[in-house]
Amino acid sequence: MSLVVQKFGGTSVGTPQKIRAIAERIAETYASGHQLIVVVSAMGHTTDELVELAYKVSKKPKNREMDMLLTAGERISMALLSMALEDLKIQAMSFTGSQTGIITDGNHCRARIKKILGDRVKNAISENKVAIVAGFQGVSESKEITTLGRGGSDTTAVALAAVLNADICEIYTDVDGIFSADPRIVKKAKLIKRIPHDLMVEMAFRGAGVLHYRSVDLAKKYGVKLVVKNSFKESEGTEVVNREVIKDTIKGMEEYQVLAVADDASKIFLKINLMRPTVASAIWEFSSKNHLAAIAPMFYDGQMFFYIEKDAEDEWKKGLEKLTHDGFVKSFEVIRNQVPVSLIGNRFLQDCTSLAEISDALASHDILVTHGVASPLAITVSVAASRKDEAVKILHRKFIENSDCL
Amino acid sequence: MSLVVQKFGGTSVGTPQKIRAIAERIAETYASGHQLIVVVSAMGHTTDELVELAYKVSKKPKNREMDMLLTAGERISMALLSMALEDLKIQAMSFTGSQTGIITDGNHCRARIKKILGDRVKNAISENKVAIVAGFQGVSESKEITTLGRGGSDTTAVALAAVLNADICEIYTDVDGIFSADPRIVKKAKLIKRIPHDLMVEMAFRGAGVLHYRSVDLAKKYGVKLVVKNSFKESEGTEVVNREVIKDTIKGMEEYQVLAVADDASKIFLKINLMRPTVASAIWEFSSKNHLAAIAPMFYDGQMFFYIEKDAEDEWKKGLEKLTHDGFVKSFEVIRNQVPVSLIGNRFLQDCTSLAEISDALASHDILVTHGVASPLAITVSVAASRKDEAVKILHRKFIENSDCL
Repeated sequence: MSLVVQKFGGTSVGTPQKIRAIAERIAETYASGHQLIVVVSAMGHTTDELVELAYKVSKKPKNREMDMLLTAGERISMALLSMALEDLKIQAMSFTGSQTGIITDGNHCRARIKKILGDRVKNAISENKVAIVAGFQGVSESKEITTLGRGGSDTTAVALAAVLNADICEIYTDVDGIFSADPRIVKKAKLIKRIPHDLMVEMAFRGAGVLHYRSVDLAKKYGVKLVVKNSFKESEGTEVVNREVIKDTIKGMEEYQVLAVADDASKIFLKINLMRPTVASAIWEFSSKNHLAAIAPMFYDGQMFFYIEKDAEDEWKKGLEKLTHDGFVKSFEVIRNQVPVSLIGNRFLQDCTSLAEISDALASHDILVTHGVASPLAITVSVAASRKDEAVKILHRKFIENSDCL
Repeated sequence: MSLVVQKFGGTSVGTPQKIRAIAERIAETYASGHQLIVVVSAMGHTTDELVELAYKVSKKPKNREMDMLLTAGERISMALLSMALEDLKIQAMSFTGSQTGIITDGNHCRARIKKILGDRVKNAISENKVAIVAGFQGVSESKEITTLGRGGSDTTAVALAAVLNADICEIYTDVDGIFSADPRIVKKAKLIKRIPHDLMVEMAFRGAGVLHYRSVDLAKKYGVKLVVKNSFKESEGTEVVNREVIKDTIKGMEEYQVLAVADDASKIFLKINLMRPTVASAIWEFSSKNHLAAIAPMFYDGQMFFYIEKDAEDEWKKGLEKLTHDGFVKSFEVIRNQVPVSLIGNRFLQDCTSLAEISDALASHDILVTHGVASPLAITVSVAASRKDEAVKILHRKFIENSDCL
């Protein structure tokens, strides 16, 4: 008998009908004799609607109360799912983050998990009940309700799988798995059947929307086997596994390998001129204190460049205005039309062949690369947002369709 | 019975006495019933002496003849080692790169391995002979003798271990293993007992001198278990293994972890102003054609920055002068007193806590960070060469001695 953690996102539990369909699916897994923990998000756009509601009530809702409000979302979906399961004669029991013992730091709206107790969930599954756990939420050591921020539900699922030593953690979503590029952009994008954790971290980090890098990083740390699958379709999906299981088989022993092209329209580019090069830490302190991601950051001679989440723009601006006022920042610029496109793969940078080829391929279509950084597993370049899809297509054609990498 | 590949570097076979000592060591492994392939470098400074000799004979020796000349080095050491083994009543047989069937591209002095045939070596070990293989050398498809360039002997050993499916590849060297910092700089540096391939690639890439990243990248690709050990001392050494075997155990589930501080005095910083941002590919083409590494490269708005090998300075300069003449480069600057110092670890960049802490720690000792890039597994900053050791000490104290990461 194995222990399976399944996670269903907001779209998978978006309507009563879908909840019943999910329940059928869970019932099948249960029938085949597995112990089951199911992590759910709030239904569809519930979270967005609750946020909107908050701003209709108050101009500046406090983060603490926002967490209190938002955590109602998963309460609803998990209670409904439990009911649907009971209707199918399956004993199910729902647990909030707090009941599950998901202990976080006290950072409202962006809490990090410190540890998971999990006693009640363990008891439930040992009694052959399906445990339904609220994703995205936890409780601080001072008993405050917290939410985990971006990637929260996936992170809940992976963290539970890690702590309870689950055999597998299945992430159900509205696509068939992880592709070699966004299939909405690239028609010939291939489903990746297996990808090692380290490359999936890079991919998630640089834009593949299906999994959040935070949850993949956690899966990598604890060696949790992830499977990304379609909620409403039988598909093999994509397995995210330890590297040992996968050996890449490029012809030349030492050649680089490209696995995927990732793009990310949810990012924008930020450029900061510091007052002095010695005050860089002021910026990092601000971003770290507020858990604001700075992606592919580079720093040179008093200038800083990195990507930020588009919807964190206001928060960054407010912070940088204060830092300007305090004498750390000379000026800053949010460059909204620059987005990152990345190649994910192995053995980049033994030489610069791949960098040369990216620059060349894009230049020959008059696409200007304005910024770029590279590391052994990924190369990220900036292109104009209006040319992004074209850039993805060109790179996919060159590095994936016209090669035998996959 | 398992198949063991052992590699001994130049210092390990530096004198006749040492060759006899190595032979004794090999005899022990042989006596315990293992099949054995031993990869050797040229004795001590032989390669340097041969290079010097070449320049005494000719102003501009051709790369082809240089390869012919240098490959004599391993011939000497492997023949001597075979003799020492025969004296110990162990049947040994030496093989050149060509005899081993190490097929490379035709790039003299910096060839890449394309495949390995290995038939003669397989025959030798199946007859219970110890196969002694010349490291660093191969043969192109047009039967030209080639050498593999930097990291060549380690790469030979790992590639053989991969192709022949060895159980382990032991790299013998003059230190006890991989440390959390250079023990010559940091007295409290800790021996790392186990490190996953991906972090070892980053570490090697960013300066840890013991292993070359090229060989580690290959070990990662093929899942080869590496052990780095002292040639002349009984020590457990450091195992470089698949991530699955190691689970890092930081208190907070989602906290970052620092494993080591790497520094690299063999690098210098290069800054290039392009004539137009669109001509970046000219630089990458030059570096890729010549297999010249560009480490931690970044590109912004027509400016490029990266580290190069100190001893490749002349080659870069010559190339860049030509590119200036051809209208691609406006100006370039070699900044000799800036060297990279890196933190290697896990889960950097979920937020910027670690970046903030690096900047802060160094700034509080008036060490200026002039350049920095970060990726999920590593953060690299530039400091003045004269302050490098101090920076390493400060970072090691802060992130490793005063933490429970290891």
